[in-house]
Amino acid sequence: MIKVSVLYPNGSDKTFDMDYYCDTHAPLVAGLLGDALRGATVEKGLGGGAPDSSALYIAMGNMYFDSVEEFGKSFGPNAEKIKGDMVNFTNSQPIIQVSEVML
Amino acid sequence: MIKVSVLYPNGSDKTFDMDYYCDTHAPLVAGLLGDALRGATVEKGLGGGAPDSSALYIAMGNMYFDSVEEFGKSFGPNAEKIKGDMVNFTNSQPIIQVSEVML
Repeated sequence: MIKVSVLYPNGSDKTFDMDYYCDTHAPLVAGLLGDALRGATVEKGLGGGAPDSSALYIAMGNMYFDSVEEFGKSFGPNAEKIKGDMVNFTNSQPIIQVSEVML
Repeated sequence: MIKVSVLYPNGSDKTFDMDYYCDTHAPLVAGLLGDALRGATVEKGLGGGAPDSSALYIAMGNMYFDSVEEFGKSFGPNAEKIKGDMVNFTNSQPIIQVSEVML
């Protein structure tokens, strides 16, 4: 299983509409990716490790696939449509990480 | 539910013993935190969003708790013991993020 993390950097000028992301963007992505998407999670940044510190990421979205190939096949043809929806919920440019799920 | 992400930055000089992390460190943490720890996941960085790019994080460990208070109560008294084990598996100084699980 692989996990694709979409990490939205935080900052004083950064905005993120979590309601839109959960209620509209996530279902849009799920509908486009279909059965290749094995699961998805969403988190809202609360803080860092030190008391009263800011979260590094204002939000994190995570998608699970059986393999990197499955991710590429399902996400590639829909990438522009998915990225095009970003202006509707954030001005933060996300960082992508592909990981192997170990535990 | 909250998620505490422990993100280990990648780099050409960074090392990470995933076998030790999964087989020894994770059980150590689980034993120390007890019932407050609702779940845990581990991922190994494979790459970034662009083809042939490096993963931003060499590894990510995630712990789930009912609340920030539960995390603090269980992790605080064990923090030194947990951090003290880090030299056994990595030379990367992790970034901590506390998040609220939305989906």
